[in-house]
Amino acid sequence: MSRIAFRHIALIGLGLEASSIALAARRAGFDGRITGTARTAATRDTALRLGLCDAVFDTAAETVAGADLVILCVPVGAMAEVAAAMAPGLAPQVVVSDVGSVKARVIADVAPHLPPNTHFIPSHPIAGTERSGPEAGFAELFDDRWCLFTPLSDTDPTQLTKLRDFWHALGAKTDTMDAEHHDLVLAVTSHAPHLIAYTMVGVADDLSRVTESEVVNYSAAGFRDFTRIAASDPTMWRDVFLTNKAATLEILGRFTEELFALQRAIRQGDGVHLHDYFTRTRAIRQGIIEAGQDTDAPNFGRTPLPPAEPDT
Amino acid sequence: MSRIAFRHIALIGLGLEASSIALAARRAGFDGRITGTARTAATRDTALRLGLCDAVFDTAAETVAGADLVILCVPVGAMAEVAAAMAPGLAPQVVVSDVGSVKARVIADVAPHLPPNTHFIPSHPIAGTERSGPEAGFAELFDDRWCLFTPLSDTDPTQLTKLRDFWHALGAKTDTMDAEHHDLVLAVTSHAPHLIAYTMVGVADDLSRVTESEVVNYSAAGFRDFTRIAASDPTMWRDVFLTNKAATLEILGRFTEELFALQRAIRQGDGVHLHDYFTRTRAIRQGIIEAGQDTDAPNFGRTPLPPAEPDT
Repeated sequence: MSRIAFRHIALIGLGLEASSIALAARRAGFDGRITGTARTAATRDTALRLGLCDAVFDTAAETVAGADLVILCVPVGAMAEVAAAMAPGLAPQVVVSDVGSVKARVIADVAPHLPPNTHFIPSHPIAGTERSGPEAGFAELFDDRWCLFTPLSDTDPTQLTKLRDFWHALGAKTDTMDAEHHDLVLAVTSHAPHLIAYTMVGVADDLSRVTESEVVNYSAAGFRDFTRIAASDPTMWRDVFLTNKAATLEILGRFTEELFALQRAIRQGDGVHLHDYFTRTRAIRQGIIEAGQDTDAPNFGRTPLPPAEPDT
Repeated sequence: MSRIAFRHIALIGLGLEASSIALAARRAGFDGRITGTARTAATRDTALRLGLCDAVFDTAAETVAGADLVILCVPVGAMAEVAAAMAPGLAPQVVVSDVGSVKARVIADVAPHLPPNTHFIPSHPIAGTERSGPEAGFAELFDDRWCLFTPLSDTDPTQLTKLRDFWHALGAKTDTMDAEHHDLVLAVTSHAPHLIAYTMVGVADDLSRVTESEVVNYSAAGFRDFTRIAASDPTMWRDVFLTNKAATLEILGRFTEELFALQRAIRQGDGVHLHDYFTRTRAIRQGIIEAGQDTDAPNFGRTPLPPAEPDT
């Protein structure tokens, strides 16, 4: 018996997030209707071929017709346009949600387009991989990950509960916070780290004295973790930085300040400063493992584990 | 039949690298003698208990007595001291090597202490995890990873071949380069990325408005990859930065310059610049996967793979 109270889910955009939502909903026993649309015909065809949707449409308005849950799964910069395009097709009392990584801007871009008899509940499932497109999705993507809601002041608590139950059925844990606070937290845990990883990978690519083959061959030393982050979808990330500009720039300013202090410690040979700093950061890793947000296996489990110890 | 030509391996320092060398050598069929020493009695006891060594000694000079291969597995900043301490015990014609992440400084620190009838071949296996200590080692650590040699101008080619065969038996691929070039390449692929990851994790820890629990809970968005890198051994990394100062600071200077350009693009809303940059970095990831230096599984294989596609 499915725990999902909705009967017709419409997915606008059919990339990694949307395809994973479809697969996770089916895994949870959802036997209602799933419709979808995507910008390109190739993506729409792939989604049909994979059986992600019962039907795909060329327009957002056709896709949402009759749906009681609409989820916008497009890059943040495209939210305003798809909201305007789908609005004429929305059924009364529909729950409209999204998966955008930035929340204040999505609210500003989407809310004005929605008829008054709809329920808009902005959401952000914190789960993704470096892959994109409809073939990148998998049913387990949201298992034990967080889905954050940033409800508006007039959000109907009954609808929020329905949406929360939906995400629980998909495997996620949920929490609620203010949109501005969300954008600051994510600037720290996601947006700034992504920009930094993109930057470091770009620098490595630029250095002509260090040939690409050397950077690639000797990447196991730390750099390869940056390249995974820097392989993420370019359009999605361009939009994240442009729509969470203030918080991202604030965190990057703090980062640069701190980096300069560590550079000075290196230049001055201040080993105590460096050792203290590196000891403190080690403890944070332990917290993440205890919170179940990463594996404790060395190298993320990329390398085999040592044989079990008899007395450990 | 073991492909290892040495008969007695002495390990100075008994952490992740040394314990993995011992386990990988045994896996390769090495049936000679392994002796070891470590700074603390606790580490020496653990190594004995785990059966990593046939015998452990309190001093480096006792440990190397009779060995035909000595490998220095201590932090780069401790190399000079252990080289001086072991020198009186070295047998004639012994091969002395190391696993230090910085090569020019290790050569400067170790070479002056070695008697003329020894063969010093500086080495760097590019393999590690965020764990440290004798219990962190495992036999597969070096499989398909690179071990770089930075031989001196007077290195005996026969001894270099023996050492190369040793590392092949441990599962590694090998290459040879100049020590200064090594230090620049590693500044790009390892040292700068580590300092950047340490910095970002430290910044997150500092931000009192973003509570630790939020940073930890929502870390799956990219930050957790930084925390893994920033969980590496503090002493080892302090020494790396202090001994590869010039190359690390040069790469960090380039990084900051590039980061400022991207920050300006964000501030000015230059989406084309951002999208182009992020598209270029995505390609580098593909190169690393093709070179066998990382898994192609999304999230490093942390999350389950999607079901196989019939026609992909």
